[in-house]
Amino acid sequence: MSQTITPKPAPSNPQAERIVISVDAMGSDKGPAAIVAGCSHSAKKNKDIFFLLHGRKSELEPLVARKKNLRGRCTIVDAEGIVSMEDKPSQVMRSGKSTSMWSALESVRNKEATVCVSCGNTGALMALSVIRLRKIPGVYRPAIAVLWPSRNPQGFNVMLDAGADIRADERDLLQYALMGASYARNGLHLARPRVGLLNVGTEEFKGRAEIQAANELIAENADAANFEYVGFVEGSDLPGKKCDVIVTDGFTGNIALKTGEGTASLIRDLLREAFNYTPLSRLAALLAFTSLKRLSSRIDPRKVNGGIFLGLNGTVVKSHGSADATGVSAAVKLAFQLAQSGFNEKLAARISAATMLASEAGTEHIKNSEEEANS
Amino acid sequence: MSQTITPKPAPSNPQAERIVISVDAMGSDKGPAAIVAGCSHSAKKNKDIFFLLHGRKSELEPLVARKKNLRGRCTIVDAEGIVSMEDKPSQVMRSGKSTSMWSALESVRNKEATVCVSCGNTGALMALSVIRLRKIPGVYRPAIAVLWPSRNPQGFNVMLDAGADIRADERDLLQYALMGASYARNGLHLARPRVGLLNVGTEEFKGRAEIQAANELIAENADAANFEYVGFVEGSDLPGKKCDVIVTDGFTGNIALKTGEGTASLIRDLLREAFNYTPLSRLAALLAFTSLKRLSSRIDPRKVNGGIFLGLNGTVVKSHGSADATGVSAAVKLAFQLAQSGFNEKLAARISAATMLASEAGTEHIKNSEEEANS
Repeated sequence: MSQTITPKPAPSNPQAERIVISVDAMGSDKGPAAIVAGCSHSAKKNKDIFFLLHGRKSELEPLVARKKNLRGRCTIVDAEGIVSMEDKPSQVMRSGKSTSMWSALESVRNKEATVCVSCGNTGALMALSVIRLRKIPGVYRPAIAVLWPSRNPQGFNVMLDAGADIRADERDLLQYALMGASYARNGLHLARPRVGLLNVGTEEFKGRAEIQAANELIAENADAANFEYVGFVEGSDLPGKKCDVIVTDGFTGNIALKTGEGTASLIRDLLREAFNYTPLSRLAALLAFTSLKRLSSRIDPRKVNGGIFLGLNGTVVKSHGSADATGVSAAVKLAFQLAQSGFNEKLAARISAATMLASEAGTEHIKNSEEEANS
Repeated sequence: MSQTITPKPAPSNPQAERIVISVDAMGSDKGPAAIVAGCSHSAKKNKDIFFLLHGRKSELEPLVARKKNLRGRCTIVDAEGIVSMEDKPSQVMRSGKSTSMWSALESVRNKEATVCVSCGNTGALMALSVIRLRKIPGVYRPAIAVLWPSRNPQGFNVMLDAGADIRADERDLLQYALMGASYARNGLHLARPRVGLLNVGTEEFKGRAEIQAANELIAENADAANFEYVGFVEGSDLPGKKCDVIVTDGFTGNIALKTGEGTASLIRDLLREAFNYTPLSRLAALLAFTSLKRLSSRIDPRKVNGGIFLGLNGTVVKSHGSADATGVSAAVKLAFQLAQSGFNEKLAARISAATMLASEAGTEHIKNSEEEANS
């Protein structure tokens, strides 16, 4: 309550204004209680944040009432329908109008909110986002960008596409580079991000035809778009320090992401087993508790829990379906940061500049051909 | 010495006979000393194993002379040339005749040895293996199969293709399933391996056209080829227990493999850091030493160090370029097991049966169409 009564500007941002985040409260594995708890957690930490909470009013009202710090900062938007994890995207596009997911995107479409956060069905969320928010002019395929724990000073790398589309040609891969660099600038505060293109080797002759073509195209555009292009990188560079942004098609990206998660989860379990093996190792675990906790927080998937949809008129943050309050709060924090930095407008400007550059290059190319023909 | 003077049959295999393994002793990152040490290590443990060691005689002779247990069990084949990690496969194919790699494959081609082991340049080794050993009749694309630490009782899953070819259509993916299942039967002793096809989701409608087609093709062939087909699996199932063999194209497989290795390596380093953070955590590491060692051995890449080339007239085991004696010895052990089980003959028979089945199905199909046309 005190936060709404005595508003004082945040020290880092004197002209702070309220940022409204549209939250899909239904359809996650942990139910609406986890979502409301996550919002409350974020509200406690950040006085500039406000929520539009979409879902069944009858379920949400008592949950919100119990969180004092959400009072006056959270409006419930009643929506009866729920998109389940099993629903097919095509089905939701046809008949999902009554759902909380649809309603949450509608608030961004109507400019009532800047960013939408959902823990629901990824495929349906992507499909609805594309038809309701529409693609930024010049974008062919939107992408999902994820944060990947890495050896870099910022602690994370950006990888895209993590699975929005199973195909990507050289033109798409260039746009992923532009969008990923823009995200790294605004989400990770890197002035001049280093971008790499995922391949099966770093030698120039390696990889499929579209990757060869993308390699040239991205190199040509790097300077104008204010990023450094490091060329081909390999799977081992995803958690590495060779670059900050890794570009790939959504098929490869999705498999890499789940492989990384699966590997980390196996090691976590083996580690737990190892420390449970003997009384001595159990004692050791006790002694190393703080250190192990620090490690575990470093690779905690809940803390890197915001996949971002890039290339749409409006930002959509997709959180893990099984995200708890900590996970939801991390996604909300990321959404707030991006909204505050005017990320989406900057991204649109970047795409527009690159598109103009490409069409100028095209004109130039035609002009050159004409000159050659005339000479 | 005692082993050659008093030969007694191994308990598990009363009709044990000597198995000759052809080893490329040059071109690894650690040099020929590590290779010779690895061979010596294997020779110590296994009295039925004999070596043809290919490389510069002047360098190899003193190394071998120092290992008493290699006396009488190791023949050096002089080869002056060395394939470096930077050499392009095409270059080696044209002018690599004098190299230790070529010479090592030649011994398998001439039936002097059953299996070839090399730590050298993967691309060159694959290219040379294909032209010198030739593909098994009916195989379109050979593949590299790797072992992946997993939650399964056998401790490992098989994944292929790990990067022999960046393309694979449905016909190739079916053959990978046949070859992978055969490898799991002979290398991991699984009577009826469970095979999965790597995709971005487990729903039937997901993935590219060739993966959809492969899904049907593999399901149709599973019973005849004596494996269980579990359908689509995801990246997280690579270290999982849902199946024993994971089939994918070489582009995706290579990136998944390196992503898994990179993730494991990052966690290993963070763990080391965590245990070095405070005096208390250093004490904890000391107490947990044995348990941590057990964990580390479970995910030690040196112990899963044999990538196998499948689909050729002869087995080729590719070991990590940076393999030390432990790594080389693990690769030699795997080579021995496969040679002893008559793996390659069984694999060829399996491919031949599937090819016949396919052509019968084709005939059947034509017959049915004719009957329909006549009715």
